[in-house]
Amino acid sequence: MQRRAVILLSGGLDSSTVLAIARERGFECHALSFAYGQRHEAELRAAARVAHSMDASHRVARVDLPWSVSALTGAVDVPKGRPVKEMSVGIPVTYVPARNTIFLSYALSLAESIGAIDIFAGMNAVDYSGYPDCRPEFLAAFEATARLGTKAGVEGACITIHAPLVRMMKADIVREGARLGVDYSLTLSCYDPQGETPCEACDSCQLRALGFRDAGLIDPAVRAA
Amino acid sequence: MQRRAVILLSGGLDSSTVLAIARERGFECHALSFAYGQRHEAELRAAARVAHSMDASHRVARVDLPWSVSALTGAVDVPKGRPVKEMSVGIPVTYVPARNTIFLSYALSLAESIGAIDIFAGMNAVDYSGYPDCRPEFLAAFEATARLGTKAGVEGACITIHAPLVRMMKADIVREGARLGVDYSLTLSCYDPQGETPCEACDSCQLRALGFRDAGLIDPAVRAA
Repeated sequence: MQRRAVILLSGGLDSSTVLAIARERGFECHALSFAYGQRHEAELRAAARVAHSMDASHRVARVDLPWSVSALTGAVDVPKGRPVKEMSVGIPVTYVPARNTIFLSYALSLAESIGAIDIFAGMNAVDYSGYPDCRPEFLAAFEATARLGTKAGVEGACITIHAPLVRMMKADIVREGARLGVDYSLTLSCYDPQGETPCEACDSCQLRALGFRDAGLIDPAVRAA
Repeated sequence: MQRRAVILLSGGLDSSTVLAIARERGFECHALSFAYGQRHEAELRAAARVAHSMDASHRVARVDLPWSVSALTGAVDVPKGRPVKEMSVGIPVTYVPARNTIFLSYALSLAESIGAIDIFAGMNAVDYSGYPDCRPEFLAAFEATARLGTKAGVEGACITIHAPLVRMMKADIVREGARLGVDYSLTLSCYDPQGETPCEACDSCQLRALGFRDAGLIDPAVRAA
């Protein structure tokens, strides 16, 4: 039987590339997205498109964080047009308290429920500079928690959190996705899109644009200038 | 300023006692309960009563686990009337995959949002025998994850998961709660109550009854026989 994996899929560039990587490694892929009060549901539609394009099942879990104060959930404005070098200073206002811990916990619950011990997530070296819950040491600690806190783990299953992008730069991610045939026209990375159209000014849009530029590729999700 | 703490509160005997302990230690208490598809919402009403009785704020977060297969979420019958010695063999059907990891993640998110670094939870030595996510080593691993995965933790806050009941037996918990003046008539421990009335046959009801008996106290939540 094909081994199953759970893939955290936001519908953006990184997680879509991770889905392609998990698929290439031979896993039966079960994508998981979250409705957590983010400003827009366009990213959930992107996630559904991406999952469908790679023959993955797709689930959306609703995550209720009424206390969350973050630009991603509408409490503060998304910063626009700030220089890239400022993005790696401090923790951004788009940080959602304990968000990745919650997302990985849900992934763990789904994994155990479907008999999977592999969880893939798209944390990467760019996020790493700002978000505490994107760092390798956080992921290692969560993996230890997962092994100790589940029936599967206690019975000896080697539950593994795969973060194949964690030490890659955006351009490397774009190249890897291109090699794997990811259709980036289906993805949406923007923190604050108008409908399905990225703003091209938030941190996420800017980092994506730089990634495509440095990889020498055209982003098919952005209108020709 | 009074230090704040988040208390996971199910409305049962254990977590109500933990709330009293946190309160005695001088914390401003913020209780957190979950609607996670459990069979009944009577436990949420109990949690609200208990929080109110101890001057704690009370929040209910909705947790969406559509894939969960557990007797607590209705997929399997709750076992009734089984001998206590069988309860400590294997992992019970009331196990919800990764449930406590999810609950603690939410508590962590709330804690960070309100400036708390102390989280109290009611895991205890009786649960310990069956549920992997009630064991001290799991709680220690989660604490490490919490310190690495949050802004507060990265900035040096010593986030702590307090599980003051973890090595106590039920009778000890009942005695401690009685000492602290917990009004156990407000609590509900049953996995399968009829309205507000406990079934007196599920594992949880049986362990509670033994706890009161061994402590030499009367359970005010149970009808006189």
